[in-house]
Amino acid sequence: MIGIGLLGYGYWGPNLARCFGEHADCRLTVVHDRDPAMRTRAERRHLGTRIAATAAEVFEDPAVDAVAIATPVSTHWELGLGALQAGKHVLIEKPIAASEREASALVDAAARAGRILMVDHTFVYTPAVQKIRELVDAGALGALHYYDSVRVNLGLFQSDVNVLWDLAVHDLAILGHIFDESPISITAQTGRHLPGRPESMALVTLAYPSGAVAHVNVNWLAPVKVRQTLLGGSKKMLVYNDLEPSEKIKVYDRGAHVIGDRAQSDALRVGYRTGDMWAPHLPSTEPLRNLVDHFVDCIRTGRRPRTDGQVGREIVGLLEAAECSAREGGLPVSLGIERLAS
Amino acid sequence: MIGIGLLGYGYWGPNLARCFGEHADCRLTVVHDRDPAMRTRAERRHLGTRIAATAAEVFEDPAVDAVAIATPVSTHWELGLGALQAGKHVLIEKPIAASEREASALVDAAARAGRILMVDHTFVYTPAVQKIRELVDAGALGALHYYDSVRVNLGLFQSDVNVLWDLAVHDLAILGHIFDESPISITAQTGRHLPGRPESMALVTLAYPSGAVAHVNVNWLAPVKVRQTLLGGSKKMLVYNDLEPSEKIKVYDRGAHVIGDRAQSDALRVGYRTGDMWAPHLPSTEPLRNLVDHFVDCIRTGRRPRTDGQVGREIVGLLEAAECSAREGGLPVSLGIERLAS
Amino acid sequence: MIGIGLLGYGYWGPNLARCFGEHADCRLTVVHDRDPAMRTRAERRHLGTRIAATAAEVFEDPAVDAVAIATPVSTHWELGLGALQAGKHVLIEKPIAASEREASALVDAAARAGRILMVDHTFVYTPAVQKIRELVDAGALGALHYYDSVRVNLGLFQSDVNVLWDLAVHDLAILGHIFDESPISITAQTGRHLPGRPESMALVTLAYPSGAVAHVNVNWLAPVKVRQTLLGGSKKMLVYNDLEPSEKIKVYDRGAHVIGDRAQSDALRVGYRTGDMWAPHLPSTEPLRNLVDHFVDCIRTGRRPRTDGQVGREIVGLLEAAECSAREGGLPVSLGIERLAS
Amino acid sequence: MIGIGLLGYGYWGPNLARCFGEHADCRLTVVHDRDPAMRTRAERRHLGTRIAATAAEVFEDPAVDAVAIATPVSTHWELGLGALQAGKHVLIEKPIAASEREASALVDAAARAGRILMVDHTFVYTPAVQKIRELVDAGALGALHYYDSVRVNLGLFQSDVNVLWDLAVHDLAILGHIFDESPISITAQTGRHLPGRPESMALVTLAYPSGAVAHVNVNWLAPVKVRQTLLGGSKKMLVYNDLEPSEKIKVYDRGAHVIGDRAQSDALRVGYRTGDMWAPHLPSTEPLRNLVDHFVDCIRTGRRPRTDGQVGREIVGLLEAAECSAREGGLPVSLGIERLAS
Repeated sequence: MIGIGLLGYGYWGPNLARCFGEHADCRLTVVHDRDPAMRTRAERRHLGTRIAATAAEVFEDPAVDAVAIATPVSTHWELGLGALQAGKHVLIEKPIAASEREASALVDAAARAGRILMVDHTFVYTPAVQKIRELVDAGALGALHYYDSVRVNLGLFQSDVNVLWDLAVHDLAILGHIFDESPISITAQTGRHLPGRPESMALVTLAYPSGAVAHVNVNWLAPVKVRQTLLGGSKKMLVYNDLEPSEKIKVYDRGAHVIGDRAQSDALRVGYRTGDMWAPHLPSTEPLRNLVDHFVDCIRTGRRPRTDGQVGREIVGLLEAAECSAREGGLPVSLGIERLAS
Repeated sequence: MIGIGLLGYGYWGPNLARCFGEHADCRLTVVHDRDPAMRTRAERRHLGTRIAATAAEVFEDPAVDAVAIATPVSTHWELGLGALQAGKHVLIEKPIAASEREASALVDAAARAGRILMVDHTFVYTPAVQKIRELVDAGALGALHYYDSVRVNLGLFQSDVNVLWDLAVHDLAILGHIFDESPISITAQTGRHLPGRPESMALVTLAYPSGAVAHVNVNWLAPVKVRQTLLGGSKKMLVYNDLEPSEKIKVYDRGAHVIGDRAQSDALRVGYRTGDMWAPHLPSTEPLRNLVDHFVDCIRTGRRPRTDGQVGREIVGLLEAAECSAREGGLPVSLGIERLAS
Repeated sequence: MIGIGLLGYGYWGPNLARCFGEHADCRLTVVHDRDPAMRTRAERRHLGTRIAATAAEVFEDPAVDAVAIATPVSTHWELGLGALQAGKHVLIEKPIAASEREASALVDAAARAGRILMVDHTFVYTPAVQKIRELVDAGALGALHYYDSVRVNLGLFQSDVNVLWDLAVHDLAILGHIFDESPISITAQTGRHLPGRPESMALVTLAYPSGAVAHVNVNWLAPVKVRQTLLGGSKKMLVYNDLEPSEKIKVYDRGAHVIGDRAQSDALRVGYRTGDMWAPHLPSTEPLRNLVDHFVDCIRTGRRPRTDGQVGREIVGLLEAAECSAREGGLPVSLGIERLAS
Repeated sequence: MIGIGLLGYGYWGPNLARCFGEHADCRLTVVHDRDPAMRTRAERRHLGTRIAATAAEVFEDPAVDAVAIATPVSTHWELGLGALQAGKHVLIEKPIAASEREASALVDAAARAGRILMVDHTFVYTPAVQKIRELVDAGALGALHYYDSVRVNLGLFQSDVNVLWDLAVHDLAILGHIFDESPISITAQTGRHLPGRPESMALVTLAYPSGAVAHVNVNWLAPVKVRQTLLGGSKKMLVYNDLEPSEKIKVYDRGAHVIGDRAQSDALRVGYRTGDMWAPHLPSTEPLRNLVDHFVDCIRTGRRPRTDGQVGREIVGLLEAAECSAREGGLPVSLGIERLAS
C-alpha cells in the first residue's frame, strides 16, 4: 500500500484525492492546505485521513511514500524539493515549476534521491492523445505537416500565471508527446485585455527542423468554448475535438499531392484525395486515473514516467521562451542545442 | 446603360458576368480571355456579347464604360493601367495588384484619369460583415479586444500566389472595414507542405495601437472546411461562422471584468458575465450583387467606393509586410507612419 | 431540520442522497436498499447515516419526516402507501406507480394522511423547461401548434419497464407542464428489437382540442444520443436541445401566415417571416436541487407541489393509454372526460 | 439523339431542362408551360428550343422521343396518358399521380404502348441512398430494425397537395428502395396549422412483417431545417444527414444484445457494443443527373427503370392509405395482399 500525502486542496487537489483514494494500492494518508477553510473541507470529505497544518508534517510522516502537489505554481519548486529530500516520490501539477532553473533543481534532486518525479500533464493520459500517438507511430498519418490547436473559453483567469502557463502548457505537453522532433524556434504574441490581470490571449507558433509547424491559440476571453486541434500529415489528417462526447478523433483520408514530375514547370498541378472519414472508438477511462495508475506503476517498477521531470522541464523551458518572445512583440526565439540534447 | 468589358473568364469571371448581366443598368458588352477555350465557353453562354481576342480590343471599344478584371494577380497592374488610360472605370478582383508599388501606380492612374477604381473585396459586401460593422459603429461590442479568424480547407492551391494572397487577404479586408485603427506591426509564419508549390499555411498576427490583436489562420491543407471568426469586445463578443446557413453571426452577452479597485492587490478578482445569445437575421442578398450595385452607384454619382484603390493598396501593403515577416521566420515588421497616414 | 429516509440506492438513489444531504434544512437519516451490496456502498459513503435492512425500519423511524423512493416502479405503490400511512411525506421517482389504479391509491392515501405526495418529474424542474413555460405564459410563442420531441440513445434497457415508462414519461411530464389543455386522444406504436426484452422504441402522438399535436419519439437502440424538441407556435417557434452545454433553448422569430382574405381562393398565398434567433441565458442550477428545494418548501408551507400525486397519476394514465394503443397496433385511444376533469 | 419534350417550367422543370440539355445523348426539343410568363422565361434561356403553347403540340412533335412532366400533381395522369398514347417515353415528377387509380392507368398505358414509364423519385438516385442500399445488400447492418426520418423546415406550402404528398413521398420512395419487404400497415396523423391551407405536419408509421418499424416526421412549419434519418440494424446503425456537406452517412458499430440464454429469466441482461464510426466517401454527382442517365439508359436498352410506374403506383397507394388513416385520426390501415403481390 502506497501512502499518499496531498499538498493543496483547492481546484485540482480534490480530484487527485479522489483518484488516489479509489486506487486499490494507494491510501490517502494526509492532506495539507495553507487555507484552514480548505483543510476543514478536506477533513469532512476524507474521514480517516489526517489533516496537516504544514507541509513539513507531510514530509516528516513515515507513512507517506509519495507526495502529490497541487498548489500554486510558484510553490512547486520549494515543496517538490522538500518532498524529494524527505525521500518521497513526487507528482506535481502542471507546469512543474515557475522556471526552467527551478525545474532543473527538481530533476536533479529526484536523481540524487533516486525517487520518481512526475508532472501531471493530464492530456498525455487521455485516450484521445494516446490514440493519436498510436496513429503517428503506426505511420498512418505520414509525415506530420502541422498541429493547429484552438483552446479558448471564458475564464478562468488565474492570478499567478497567464494564459500561456495555464492553457498553452497543455498543447506543449501534447506536442512533446506526439512529435518525434523538438522545435527549433518559438514565437508568441499575447494580449492583455483586463487591466491589472495577466495576459489572457496568446498565439504561439513553433517551427520544427522538418518544416512542420505547430500553432497554439489560447484565450480566456472567448465567447464560446473551443477545444479543437487539426493535425495534418502527408497521408491523412485528423481533427481532435475534445468537447465531442463520443467521436473526439476523426481521421480523414484526405490530402493533396503534386502531379507531374518536371522540376519547376508551370504544368505542375495539384491533385486532391478525398476518401472516407473514420472515428476510432476511444475507451472512456478518466485521464487522471490513467495517470495515477502510471505513477503507481513507476513507483513499483522504477520505470521512468512518460511525463517525468525532464519532460516537465522542457515544457517550462518552452513557456519561458514563449514569454521571452511575447515580451519582444513576437520576436522568434531560437531553442538552443542544449535543450534539444537534454 | 453602362457598358461592361470583362477581362478573364476563368473561376471568378463568370460570376461577374452573371451579376453585371443581371443588373438593370448594365450591359455585358465584351468579354476577353487569353485562353481560346474560355472564350468559346463565354461565347456559348452570353449570346449577344462580343468576344475579344485581346485586352486592347476591350480598351478600344467605345461602348465599354467600365472594365472588370478577373485575371491572375500578376496581370492586374498592366490591365488596370490600360483600362484607366483608356478612360474606363475599373473593378479589379482581389488583391488589387501584386505589390504596393503596382497598386500605387493604379491609384495614381485612376486619380489622373478621374475614373472609379475599385477592388473586389467581396467579404466587405456580405450582409454578415456589414452587420458586424453596424454593431461596432453602434458601440454594441464596446472596445474591440481581438479578431481571431480560422479560414482553412482542402485546396485550391493557386499556382501564382500563396495562401496569404489567396485567403488571408479576405481577413485583412474585413479587418480594414471593421477596425477603426490601423495596425502598427505584423508577423507571419508560413508552412510549405507540398514541394514546389507556394506556401499553403500561414499564421498572421497584427498588433494595434489600442492593444487589440488580430489573428488570421489560413490553410489549404486542412481536413475540414472552417470559416469561423471570434470577435471580442469589452461589452460583448461575437462568433461569425460563414458556413452556417442561417445564423452566421451570434452575439454573446458575455465578458469578464475586474472586481475591486485597489491598484495591484491580490484581492483583485475577476467577475464573469454570462447573458443571452442573439443571432440577428441577415438578408440573403448575394455579396457580389451588393458590390456590383455599389460600383454602379459610384460610377453614377462619383462617390468614392468603400473598397477603392487606396484600400486595395493598403491591403497589398500588409500582404507584402506579412511575406517579409514570413521570410524572416516570423520577425515582427513595423508598419510605417506613411502607411498609417495614407 | 427535516429527516429524510431514502429507499433504493441503485442508479438514482445516490443523487437524491447527495441533494438531500447538501440541503441546509435536511438530514439524510436512514437509507435502505434490498441489495446488501448497495447498503454497504451507502454505508461507506454516508457516515453518520443509519442503514436499514428493511423498509419497515424506515417507516417506523420517528426521526424520519419524509421518505424518498427510488426503487423499481413495481414497488412504488406499496412503499409509498407504507410511508404515507406512517405519516411521512413522500417523494417518488417517476413514474409515480405502475398503473393509474395504484397511483390513485397513493393520491387518496396522501389526502387522508394530510401529507405531501410528490413525483420526481425532474425535467419540470430544469431551467430550460421553466423558461419554456415562462415564454408560453407570456404569450411569446402565440398559440401552440405542436410539440415534437426526439429522445433517443443507446441503452439503458430497463428490465421491468419499457421505453415508454422510461423515456416517454419525461415528455409527457413536460407536456403536462407547458400545455394549458389536456389531450383528447393518444396513439402509440412500439418496436421490440431485442428478443425477450421490453419494447425499445416507441412513437407516441397526442391530439389536443385546439388542434395542437404532440409527438414523442423514444428509442433505446439509436446510434447517437438526441434530446431535441421543436415547439411550434403561431408567433414564434423554438428548439430545445438538452445536450447543448449552454444554449439549450433557441427561440426563432419565424413563421408563416396566409396572405389574402378571400375564403377559398386559389389566390390565397402563404407568406413567411424570418427574423432573429435568440437564446436566453439559463441559470445552471441542477434540476434535482430545484426539485428538492421545492419538496422542502411544500413540506414547510403545505403548498401543493407542482408535480403532486395527481399530476403523477395523469401521466401514468397516459402511459397506460399509450400501451393500450400500442397493443392494438397504434389504434387511437380516446382520453375520457373524467381524466380531463381531474 | 433522344428528343426531349418538357411539360412544366415552374420550380422543378428548369432543373430537368438543364440536366437533359447537358446530356450528350439528349436534345431539349420543346418546352411547354401553361403560363405565358414561364414560356417567355424558357424561351430566353433555351435558345434553339421550341416553345409550345399547348401540351398537344409536344405530343404531336415527331422529334420528341420522350416527355418529361413537371406540372402540378393533378395533371400528371392526363398528360402522362397523352404522351404514352402518342408513343413517347415518359418521366414524371414525384408523386406519379394523384391517386392509385390514376397511377394504374398510367402503368397500363405504358405497358400497352411498350414505352418506358419512370417516376422522378430523386432521392433514390442520390449517392447517399445508393450507398445505404449497398450496405444493406452487403449485410453490413444486419437485420433492419427501424428507419426513423425527420424532414422538416419552414415552407414551402404547396397549394394543391399537403405535406404528405410533398415531403413524406421522399421517405416512402427511399424505404421502397432499401427495405426488402413491404409494409403491412400504415398510420398517419396530421396537423393543419394555417387556416385554409393543406396539412403542414404529418407523422407516418409503417409496420413491416419482420417487426421492423418505419417512421416519417414531416413538417412545413419548423423553425429549423432538418433532414436526418436513423437506420437501426441488428449489426450496425447509421445516421444519414442530408444537410452535411461531406459526411452525409455515418455508420456506427454500435448495438445491444441479450446476454444469457435462459428463456425468460430476470438474469437476462443486455450488453452494449460501442465501436468505431465510419463515414464512407460519397461521390458528388448530382442525383438528377444520375436519374437522367438512368432514364436514357432504360430508353436505349429497354430495361425496367429502378423507379418505374409500378414503384410510383405503390408509393401513391401508400400516400392514399396514409391520408385515409389521417382522416380517421391515425387509425391503422392494413395494406392489402394485392398490393404486396403487385
